[in-house]
Amino acid sequence: MTRLVKNAAGRMVPVEINGQAAVPYQGVGKYRPEGRKRGAPIRSSADYPADGDKIVANIKDALINAGLRDGMTISTHHHLRNGDHVANAVFAAAAELGVKNLRWFPSASFPCHAGMIDLMESGVIHHIEGSMNGPLGDYCTRGKMKGMAVLRSHGGRYQAIQDGDVKVDIAVIAAPTADPFGNATGDRGPTACGLLGFALADSEYADHVIAVTDNLVPFPCVPWQIQGNNVDQVVVMDSIGDASKIVSGTTQITKSPDRLLIAELTARFCDEAGIVQDGFSFQAGAGGTALSFALFLRDMMRERNIKARFVRGGSTQYLVDMLEEGLTDYILDGQTFDLEGVRSMRENPGHLDTSPFTSYNWHGKGNFASMLDAVVLGATEVDTHFNANVVTHSDGRLLHGIGGWQNCLASKCTILPIPSFRDRIPVVVDEVTTLCGPGELVDVIVTERGIAINPLRRDLLEKLRGSSLPLRTLTEIKSEVEDICGGPADKPHLGKKVVAAIKWVDGTVIDSVRQVGD
Amino acid sequence: MTRLVKNAAGRMVPVEINGQAAVPYQGVGKYRPEGRKRGAPIRSSADYPADGDKIVANIKDALINAGLRDGMTISTHHHLRNGDHVANAVFAAAAELGVKNLRWFPSASFPCHAGMIDLMESGVIHHIEGSMNGPLGDYCTRGKMKGMAVLRSHGGRYQAIQDGDVKVDIAVIAAPTADPFGNATGDRGPTACGLLGFALADSEYADHVIAVTDNLVPFPCVPWQIQGNNVDQVVVMDSIGDASKIVSGTTQITKSPDRLLIAELTARFCDEAGIVQDGFSFQAGAGGTALSFALFLRDMMRERNIKARFVRGGSTQYLVDMLEEGLTDYILDGQTFDLEGVRSMRENPGHLDTSPFTSYNWHGKGNFASMLDAVVLGATEVDTHFNANVVTHSDGRLLHGIGGWQNCLASKCTILPIPSFRDRIPVVVDEVTTLCGPGELVDVIVTERGIAINPLRRDLLEKLRGSSLPLRTLTEIKSEVEDICGGPADKPHLGKKVVAAIKWVDGTVIDSVRQVGD
Repeated sequence: MTRLVKNAAGRMVPVEINGQAAVPYQGVGKYRPEGRKRGAPIRSSADYPADGDKIVANIKDALINAGLRDGMTISTHHHLRNGDHVANAVFAAAAELGVKNLRWFPSASFPCHAGMIDLMESGVIHHIEGSMNGPLGDYCTRGKMKGMAVLRSHGGRYQAIQDGDVKVDIAVIAAPTADPFGNATGDRGPTACGLLGFALADSEYADHVIAVTDNLVPFPCVPWQIQGNNVDQVVVMDSIGDASKIVSGTTQITKSPDRLLIAELTARFCDEAGIVQDGFSFQAGAGGTALSFALFLRDMMRERNIKARFVRGGSTQYLVDMLEEGLTDYILDGQTFDLEGVRSMRENPGHLDTSPFTSYNWHGKGNFASMLDAVVLGATEVDTHFNANVVTHSDGRLLHGIGGWQNCLASKCTILPIPSFRDRIPVVVDEVTTLCGPGELVDVIVTERGIAINPLRRDLLEKLRGSSLPLRTLTEIKSEVEDICGGPADKPHLGKKVVAAIKWVDGTVIDSVRQVGD
Repeated sequence: MTRLVKNAAGRMVPVEINGQAAVPYQGVGKYRPEGRKRGAPIRSSADYPADGDKIVANIKDALINAGLRDGMTISTHHHLRNGDHVANAVFAAAAELGVKNLRWFPSASFPCHAGMIDLMESGVIHHIEGSMNGPLGDYCTRGKMKGMAVLRSHGGRYQAIQDGDVKVDIAVIAAPTADPFGNATGDRGPTACGLLGFALADSEYADHVIAVTDNLVPFPCVPWQIQGNNVDQVVVMDSIGDASKIVSGTTQITKSPDRLLIAELTARFCDEAGIVQDGFSFQAGAGGTALSFALFLRDMMRERNIKARFVRGGSTQYLVDMLEEGLTDYILDGQTFDLEGVRSMRENPGHLDTSPFTSYNWHGKGNFASMLDAVVLGATEVDTHFNANVVTHSDGRLLHGIGGWQNCLASKCTILPIPSFRDRIPVVVDEVTTLCGPGELVDVIVTERGIAINPLRRDLLEKLRGSSLPLRTLTEIKSEVEDICGGPADKPHLGKKVVAAIKWVDGTVIDSVRQVGD
């Protein structure tokens, strides 16, 4: 049985994860790392082809050349989201080669990777460390995975690789366009996905790096979002993914009157809080409410002739319109959410490629996230102390990844616009099922029943004094919602087994996820 | 007395340099490195301002904050060449702070840094490791420096930092434009120099990084050639350099009839060797002969409707013209040599910023240099075995740096167009004063008295059989030149003391430089 201790947030967390010691969460900004970043192996150009041609016949050969063996860690990335063909091809080849007990370290996994369940059953994959959207998360919460899952934010994944917490033996990077030297870009080619930032850490620190493309171009591939100087081998396959599934299904503005109200209240809050002014910055996700918020903000900016210095992507057509209309100098993009985002990244000099290193790495010399004037995020649950959950549902099932969510909490004003209940289950609860973000970093929660400002933000409370906005406490909102839903959310039926650890941005363990059922 | 051993090139080299063990040169591609790259210290964003503002009042404060103390290594870079103000300001501040025995680790030093001699005399600077153009090289060869100089190529400097051979305590990066977070670019601002690639390694691996700018812009500084995520502090000073001296004095095409002949012979050789064809690539320096060569080549390309895939800079107006005329898809630039180069880098998407990492690092997974179809370089001396010298004059004085010269020897065809004598001193000699490049990597030497092809390149000899070009042996050329000059060059009068070590691209010691006089 995994030994658990209570961390600084009062959560019970494992002190060892898959045989490796783990540090319990110590509080925001409290844990101070020591030592040096992990260095990748020193190589010699004498061992690489002088003409720069690193192409090998197929993934299987590449894995053999890379020295694949039992127990290794293989990383992949989710730039192609639910349309990815590469991760499945890599593990199918590994299965053919007869290796066992691999650790799969994806930046995120999607329903298209459900076939990995068979490979976990057959012992090819020991466990997954990375976001699991859908079936793999469900498999994990049913206690079926041999090892413990580890969920990290985008920045936390970079930190873990940089610091050597996770040693990647072989990184496989799906590249929409690449040259034979391994320079690669995501902004063009038949399977263009925009950018490849999630693979940056792996390309820099992994022992061996394989780029897989379906669009080979003569050297140099420009831009080189991934540098061929970090790549060992290049594989060309027919198709690295299904471009039509790269686009996230959620990139439509909401039509729900409640959600539209939440979006409008969020925009009005930003206005009254004095955030919307020339040279400001904001980040909003690609969910329906966040997109609607961005449109309300856009109208405000147009009307008052206000220009943002930068907006952060996940980019969509809405942000691209703002850039092309001159409402912002830059989009600093971490991930394009639709094909307009991809086009813009390719065409607009002001649409910039960022990475978890620039944007989110807590173990760096600062990062972009804390410079944002406002960030608008989602949550599956919040509690009356402003703590928030983004990975599990109220039934305890682990169905979502953390993404950049934890990292974004560092912004100057973190706002969670969320419905107060979903499917007649309250979203505002006494205690979140899984703690992903400490309440002290959540400044404002906007629901269709009112806006709650974190009491720690006296400055905001002061600024909004006398506002016509429906300012309320979370306790008030919670009690109103429970009246509607017929009481608080049922507690999930959880077993004793810890199936997943949730890391904080500094690599410490902020919470654990238990098996659902016995 | 430094113990010397004979290396694989037959040269006597020190086995210890400034108290650190050194590996003698083992032959081209023979030395295989082990271990891992050096990791920079792991930092926490908790220790950096959340609003991204890292500005401190002045260089002295920045050095104090960086923990400057006796014996540390401070690096600077030569993007501003002979117009640099920053390195002098840094060491003046260090002197004021009373520290001693610093190692100065510039990517190159110039006559504008001659004041460092006083700081070496007073003990503030112990010794210099880096290219010394002019007075500092002369000071060194007179045996005055306390420690031993170490000369490295651009790629070798990257390798030394990456591998941890040189541990940089404090890197100071002169930045023509920067934001308060430390993102920096060289392509704009009143002191624009083009790019900042020579500082890349330092920004990635140094313990502490300071950016110094005279053109502060709001976040984000775009492009971010140097990433603020690697920068600890930002200093704003009135002027980081004299923009008029950034331009190298040699970027004019030659008017000498002999040099023009050499340039033309070089272009004709490339033609007859089959190098000039659609999709080819070449690199030529910024000296008068190299520029004239590029113009001959350009005319050939225009005439035959040939387009290069890429040309490598040091860029000048001539390469920019080729790009803008559509004679090449890309300029892959390592260093702009004139203001047209700077403008083009800022304006042309096909004018790309490269670094010693992408272009030259031997301890990488290959690099760009070996993909070049032809490279045209200079030399101070060559011997009849095609060995070449690029750092010392025939009087033994160390007056030049290596630059990218050693790294470029990796190209598919390395051509040295050189006059057979200078100031009535033969340039073709029995044995070069200092060995910088092994003869096996030099394919062709072009002089005004004929073209010598390295006998190792049977393919080239075969291809040129029956050519109307004046093909001769180096021995023939040498003997003819000695007749003209009244005998071979006088041997320099050298002392016993080793004043400088010349590193090969893999960090081994290929030769040493002795004191001139006793």
